[in-house]
Amino acid sequence: MKPTLFALAALVPSALALWPLPTSLTNGTTPLKLAWNFNIKLGFSGAPADLEAAVARAEGYLKTDQLAILTTDRGASYANELKNAKSLPSLTLEFVTAPKHGQSISSISAEAVAPIEQRDDAYTLSVPSDGTGAVLKANSTLGLYRGLQTFGQMWFDLDGTTYTVSAPFQISDKPAYPYRGFMLDTARNYYPVADILRTIDAMSWVKINTFHWHVVDSQSFPLEIPGYPLLSQKGAYNPQSVYTAADVANIVSYAAARGIDVIPEIDTPGHTAVIAEAYPEYIACAQATPWASYANEPPAGQLRLANKQVATWTADMLKAAAGMFHSQFFSTGGDEINANCYNTDNETQAELAASHQNFSQALDSFVVGNHAALRSVGKTAVVWEEMVIAYPVTLANDTVVMVWISSEDAAAVASSGLRIVHAPSNYFYLDCGHGGWVGDYPAGNSWCDPFKTWQYAYSFDPLANLTESQHSLVLGGQTLLWSEQSSKENLDATIWPRAASVAELFWSGAGGDVDAALPRLHEEVYRFRQRGVAANALQPEWCVLRPGACDLTA
Amino acid sequence: MKPTLFALAALVPSALALWPLPTSLTNGTTPLKLAWNFNIKLGFSGAPADLEAAVARAEGYLKTDQLAILTTDRGASYANELKNAKSLPSLTLEFVTAPKHGQSISSISAEAVAPIEQRDDAYTLSVPSDGTGAVLKANSTLGLYRGLQTFGQMWFDLDGTTYTVSAPFQISDKPAYPYRGFMLDTARNYYPVADILRTIDAMSWVKINTFHWHVVDSQSFPLEIPGYPLLSQKGAYNPQSVYTAADVANIVSYAAARGIDVIPEIDTPGHTAVIAEAYPEYIACAQATPWASYANEPPAGQLRLANKQVATWTADMLKAAAGMFHSQFFSTGGDEINANCYNTDNETQAELAASHQNFSQALDSFVVGNHAALRSVGKTAVVWEEMVIAYPVTLANDTVVMVWISSEDAAAVASSGLRIVHAPSNYFYLDCGHGGWVGDYPAGNSWCDPFKTWQYAYSFDPLANLTESQHSLVLGGQTLLWSEQSSKENLDATIWPRAASVAELFWSGAGGDVDAALPRLHEEVYRFRQRGVAANALQPEWCVLRPGACDLTA
Repeated sequence: MKPTLFALAALVPSALALWPLPTSLTNGTTPLKLAWNFNIKLGFSGAPADLEAAVARAEGYLKTDQLAILTTDRGASYANELKNAKSLPSLTLEFVTAPKHGQSISSISAEAVAPIEQRDDAYTLSVPSDGTGAVLKANSTLGLYRGLQTFGQMWFDLDGTTYTVSAPFQISDKPAYPYRGFMLDTARNYYPVADILRTIDAMSWVKINTFHWHVVDSQSFPLEIPGYPLLSQKGAYNPQSVYTAADVANIVSYAAARGIDVIPEIDTPGHTAVIAEAYPEYIACAQATPWASYANEPPAGQLRLANKQVATWTADMLKAAAGMFHSQFFSTGGDEINANCYNTDNETQAELAASHQNFSQALDSFVVGNHAALRSVGKTAVVWEEMVIAYPVTLANDTVVMVWISSEDAAAVASSGLRIVHAPSNYFYLDCGHGGWVGDYPAGNSWCDPFKTWQYAYSFDPLANLTESQHSLVLGGQTLLWSEQSSKENLDATIWPRAASVAELFWSGAGGDVDAALPRLHEEVYRFRQRGVAANALQPEWCVLRPGACDLTA
Repeated sequence: MKPTLFALAALVPSALALWPLPTSLTNGTTPLKLAWNFNIKLGFSGAPADLEAAVARAEGYLKTDQLAILTTDRGASYANELKNAKSLPSLTLEFVTAPKHGQSISSISAEAVAPIEQRDDAYTLSVPSDGTGAVLKANSTLGLYRGLQTFGQMWFDLDGTTYTVSAPFQISDKPAYPYRGFMLDTARNYYPVADILRTIDAMSWVKINTFHWHVVDSQSFPLEIPGYPLLSQKGAYNPQSVYTAADVANIVSYAAARGIDVIPEIDTPGHTAVIAEAYPEYIACAQATPWASYANEPPAGQLRLANKQVATWTADMLKAAAGMFHSQFFSTGGDEINANCYNTDNETQAELAASHQNFSQALDSFVVGNHAALRSVGKTAVVWEEMVIAYPVTLANDTVVMVWISSEDAAAVASSGLRIVHAPSNYFYLDCGHGGWVGDYPAGNSWCDPFKTWQYAYSFDPLANLTESQHSLVLGGQTLLWSEQSSKENLDATIWPRAASVAELFWSGAGGDVDAALPRLHEEVYRFRQRGVAANALQPEWCVLRPGACDLTA
């Protein structure tokens, strides 16, 4: 997996609002408009329902985006050219190898959750300027879905005419990295399902393919797990703030139909204080004070992992939760274990003594047991970096490790030979820099200041400090929104367009130039807004309409 | 004007969601509910229409707020107590001195824009717990309006019962400072009228009484000024992004009816590049590059102030604009004058030579002329601090000076003997810390990093470094949102609750304790959301429901 060279970026005219940038793109300067009866055709029979729905949505956006091009006259000067421009009659979706008669075609939803190394996002897209039809080709419905998103970004609106001034297009595209994610914490503050669905839509527009759902944490347990009703009944903030099994099924299928794999996380053994609401005897140091002695964040509380009953219960609960999701992956967390909590817990100390284990051995057994349970239902474990560095445990070779404490830790994790997802707090934490959540702290700074700008995140190097043989361990990366100070109120503007910035990094490859990217990112911001996602402004509109004019060197 | 001692705060139970905190408050612990037929009565005849409308809105919020109290059980444990609680039948509004028969009562709208030293915000509010009616008294409809907001914050909802557990209340309240503002820049990015009106409503809930409207700037001119149609026709981002004269009248009257004075600003002589779109000959260094040599922000361009025709035109235009507003105040700006722009402008240099003036003299004449024009229509000038410090000009004794560059500059401005509004970038700029707007700047930091937390802003001392005799020069202060990186998408969550934090500072007085304030501020955040304003989360809801539990020392 090598990062794509990004020399292309500087050559792309600003009127080309493609995000992420295709890895191979040639285009012209010919105006082209959509025919009044333009439609998207399937060049094969037996299309799965989710592809047909994706086509219908793509056709819908072509009508409803109505995005005026981001030039000073918003495209008015193109009016005459467009009168005489050729019309694009159709876009036809085809497979590179036509399916045999009677062969069933795998759905987007199935391909989105296939083992990560088997997914095929590649597509080619040809949009001629001579009035003949456009063709989108891929090996898979997943690839066709990616190409549909690209096609949808090509068009602007002028008084009801949907057009481009950059035809013809010839695109051959595939991702630099197979994992391009976004993580949302729905435990510190709850997000209604509608907000998650809107976010999934937006993710799919920029080819993010993984929703890492940090669904529960010490503060609340909004997940209804079949067989474990007390967890959400006692642990959710209120009965309305629960993701029911039906909600989860809806979110998972909604995401899959948009090419997105939902990786759930139930963080263990730390970040579990809330389980004490339903199972008080399973939690050490529950709500112990001062919390700072027992946890990184209140309330304190960790699973009594040395207790066999707790370990068995946990493994079974994780297995039940895993059954709600289609992903091959399931995260068992493993971050921020507090040693003092266990050292001062009489029950844990008694269990350790009785079983002649030290804490590390007990933790190892606990994690191995959980991962074995998940494997028994076909799941591959994902963990935070502590499970390799701070509290190393026995991990299967296919375990995926998320590096979060610092980007500097990637090399140490890679030396374990395990696969990596980049989620570094010093680059990709979208919650940083808005002040801290601690109550009696007059200065109010946050531990991970400063704010991570889109430019800074964009400059991240996924291969820094890795040896060449370790490069293939890097699955990709993700932005993250921890929700101590976030809720639906600020969701869109906090994550967009920064999550898109990182989506391009892992699709188009590292080394992108922020200067060349900015005009395209503006166009994505403005298109998001047309689609109902409240993406944040990056510059005065004066600058937006004049690419480069607000550069320091302009 | 002395800051109120804030010792009260620590004694206020968390279930008392008053923001800003009344300057004198006693309350009990008796449950009290609103009677099913509760109503707000006017204890006098001849009430102005805006007071009647304010009463109707207050009654509406009592029904629609439906805010569950912020305790872990959201009030469920009060159910039994509430069954037996007394009911409050009514709130009666009265004047301290009953108006004489036939005497017309001044409207909220009139009092909101009266000379600042004449306004009377004071009120008393008595809410007995024995089932007799509540009484709100003031000397003015403005005071009654303030008291109505306080009354509206007292109530929580439990299954349709609107109640408090903190009756009886006895409140005597008045502001520590007469100016409590919020500034919005609508030029770098445009805000629809609906967003401004929603913001005005929210401002009024926390007793902010001034909307400083930085309506135009170098990037766009969204203000339609009678007699100067070209300015907005050529200078607005697009025809939809214009505040028409009717829009302005609507905003001004909407604000006034809510006790808010709208102070417009047309910044001069800098920040005027956009005027060149309509009057190219009036602007020096219009869109000169590199912009950084000619302006703090692109596009460059400043009024050719040494030209008599330009000076006359400017004074007339300001006068015409001032006629659209009811405020006694009008800001002519005066910040960030770029000397190089004028030094390299041949026309300006020729005018200076012909008139035997140096630049300072020309600037003085220009400002004096503008202020005289405003005075001729009854307006008092407001300026940024440069007009006193960096480019001192002749200013009338009643001029108001906004200190923005640094809070440290307040002392220097005060030594001029002029009145001060605190608007320091290092405390009250709500746009800081989200990255910079400059295009080719990979690190992407902002000049005024870090983010200004509500706690830090709350800790501001309005009298720091001032002599006692200068204290009376401090009119108050305001938060500010410059919109290089803001728009309607992030408006609510960016300004709320931080603007409320500073509103309390200038109403209740300095020296407040962030620890004691946080539970009340949460309640304000949650009430704002019930009223449709997307205020930002400050902590996980777990902390919100457990005051103090997320303090570092808890």
